[in-house]
Amino acid sequence: MDRLACYDCGETYPFGEAARCSCGEPLWFETDPDAVSWPDTGGRGAEAGAAGHDSLWRYESVLPAATPVGLAAAAGGTPLLRAPSIEPADGPRLHLKLEGTNPTGSFKDRGTAVGIGRLDGPIGTVSHGNMALSVAAHAAADGREAVILVAEDTPDSRLAMIAQHDPHLFRVRGDYGRLYEDTLERDLGVAFLNSDSPLRVAGQKTVAYEICEAFRPDAPDAIVLPVSSGGQASGVWKALRELRAAGLIEAVPRIYLAQAARCDPIARAFRRGAARVEPVTGEPTAAVSINNADPPSGNRALAAVEATDGAVASVSEDALLAETDRLAADAGISVEPSCAVATAAVRDLTESGDLGRDEDIAVILTGSGYKYGTPGAGTPSVREIDREDVPAAVRELST
Amino acid sequence: MDRLACYDCGETYPFGEAARCSCGEPLWFETDPDAVSWPDTGGRGAEAGAAGHDSLWRYESVLPAATPVGLAAAAGGTPLLRAPSIEPADGPRLHLKLEGTNPTGSFKDRGTAVGIGRLDGPIGTVSHGNMALSVAAHAAADGREAVILVAEDTPDSRLAMIAQHDPHLFRVRGDYGRLYEDTLERDLGVAFLNSDSPLRVAGQKTVAYEICEAFRPDAPDAIVLPVSSGGQASGVWKALRELRAAGLIEAVPRIYLAQAARCDPIARAFRRGAARVEPVTGEPTAAVSINNADPPSGNRALAAVEATDGAVASVSEDALLAETDRLAADAGISVEPSCAVATAAVRDLTESGDLGRDEDIAVILTGSGYKYGTPGAGTPSVREIDREDVPAAVRELST
Ligand SMILES: [Zn+2]
Ligand SMILES: [Zn+2]
Repeated sequence: MDRLACYDCGETYPFGEAARCSCGEPLWFETDPDAVSWPDTGGRGAEAGAAGHDSLWRYESVLPAATPVGLAAAAGGTPLLRAPSIEPADGPRLHLKLEGTNPTGSFKDRGTAVGIGRLDGPIGTVSHGNMALSVAAHAAADGREAVILVAEDTPDSRLAMIAQHDPHLFRVRGDYGRLYEDTLERDLGVAFLNSDSPLRVAGQKTVAYEICEAFRPDAPDAIVLPVSSGGQASGVWKALRELRAAGLIEAVPRIYLAQAARCDPIARAFRRGAARVEPVTGEPTAAVSINNADPPSGNRALAAVEATDGAVASVSEDALLAETDRLAADAGISVEPSCAVATAAVRDLTESGDLGRDEDIAVILTGSGYKYGTPGAGTPSVREIDREDVPAAVRELST
Repeated sequence: MDRLACYDCGETYPFGEAARCSCGEPLWFETDPDAVSWPDTGGRGAEAGAAGHDSLWRYESVLPAATPVGLAAAAGGTPLLRAPSIEPADGPRLHLKLEGTNPTGSFKDRGTAVGIGRLDGPIGTVSHGNMALSVAAHAAADGREAVILVAEDTPDSRLAMIAQHDPHLFRVRGDYGRLYEDTLERDLGVAFLNSDSPLRVAGQKTVAYEICEAFRPDAPDAIVLPVSSGGQASGVWKALRELRAAGLIEAVPRIYLAQAARCDPIARAFRRGAARVEPVTGEPTAAVSINNADPPSGNRALAAVEATDGAVASVSEDALLAETDRLAADAGISVEPSCAVATAAVRDLTESGDLGRDEDIAVILTGSGYKYGTPGAGTPSVREIDREDVPAAVRELST
């Protein structure tokens, strides 16, 4: 499993020889079709990675790295939940994939675990959010140097969270978008595990393996997820292509992507019927983790949607904030606003008829909201009370 | 499974008839020995709770509640990891149980999930930390009213995190310790799932089932965990008693408990050779979640240690802070200081010979550190740099 391919023009490259296809599009790993099968269920022993926990390494046969020891062994294997309390009354059925239960609280641990398992030496990333935290933590676990490049406006509280894992942390003045391109240079001596690195996409695809395996022998009708760089969307598409080619799923779930309306280059391209995503000038949004005005895997994400007959939704700022509150208050799930766009999009897509009332929809909740405090929450509503008055107050509530 | 028993005097009560034994000690559920067996491994379908994820409901046959739908279905099933980077060079082997990957980031979800599955109507808790967050989230998921009583000095940031799940939140002036007793009254109309509720202890015991099953057919030599109220220690002991009685483990792992030296009533009783824990006047410690000067299940926790030939360790403030940093920087695991006391205790217990160099030690890392920011971390060490200078700076690092 050492060959990279371009989804678009079909060109292939040995792993390590190219950061991108000569046509400009990102690459991904080719997978041997014979390696694609549902693994035997059955527990792992205490010596085999994350014992008692079915991590993403369950799918080792389709990954370009071997099952590791340490933190990386714990990535993936997240719960897929029904949450009837937030489902539209007359359908569809929602199955929420809780990626916030990964070791560093987000879906990024999947790609980091696979990437660090394959690469030697120091690793880096360009991110000021979930990916930065994930790379810093996994590098620490593996005794590696990590180089984390964050944008100038990254708040100190977020830096402190990343810094506890002791990386080389740089706050970069200047065009942050172009930094991404800078790090594709191959003479830096540091391997950058950015959002559309083929290794990261290979790790990210495992979330769709887990979703489809849970529905075995069927598959969900659709998978809905937030989109930023397009790397996770690419991973989902990759998995569905592999599973379909191996005959493990019959119908391919439709892929729906959700963006914040304030920064929605992929949704705009979709509405135009274009095959190429154009950069936009985004406005600030509470969905900071997906505020990507020039997504490096944008075209590939768009191709995933077109190929599976899905759609890209834009979610208003009000709707994504309300949905963040709803998930916490009604489903008991704290997420980032960047993640709530996905269930907000489900509401719109159900209204529009894109999602059928009798369908099973898997929604990828990409990250925990606990890490980032509670955005927008002002002073919490709390009653001050003397101990002596508690019994009466409690009795009053329950009558 | 509807009878409660006292571990100490053996008295039994029907569930619901007593909050405590007449002897003053807490109660726990009796378990039918015939119900204790290792479950079949094998995946669950998408309709069966948390699909694709082996949650604590794997052990439904020994629990006083049935597998739920929704958030509670996702509790437990956490990874058990080797972390060679923080093991003493010449042993013992450490197996870290990552309880921070539970849905609300702590071990408390286990007891909450089981409790809410069994109780009807509004539920409450007395806590200003992990248990408050867990009860608020699970009540929200299940459409219940929640009553959360927090101490007067609980910081606003923590209240905001709890408040997002929309409970009735009371900040209580007065003797917070005695509040616990107040809520045992049975005419409040709200069922309080406090730390030593028999339902909670039943849920908490599943962590030891998971640990022992991962070592099957052996068991680890010892289990090390932080202790606060004594509820989790009681749960571990309960599980080991059940597994031993059913013949599923041969030797019972020794139970070691860790406290912060600034508030260590159980450790003091252990050092005195006493069978009863006396309240202490604790000093403030960074290990806030285990700062319990008068632990309601303290005697039972002490009995667990005595019965299994374990010990109770006191960890200095310097050592627990250093260990929190070490886990983040060397193992990539962010924990609360309240949790790092356990691996810090391992170092002391290894030095003293309590833990053998060739032993397998399971350590319960009770909760994620990401929720609570990074205590003690001042301004993070970050380099400010212009984009143009990044390549040179990165190259320099890697040479
Ligand atoms: Zn190409
Ligand atoms: Zn008794």
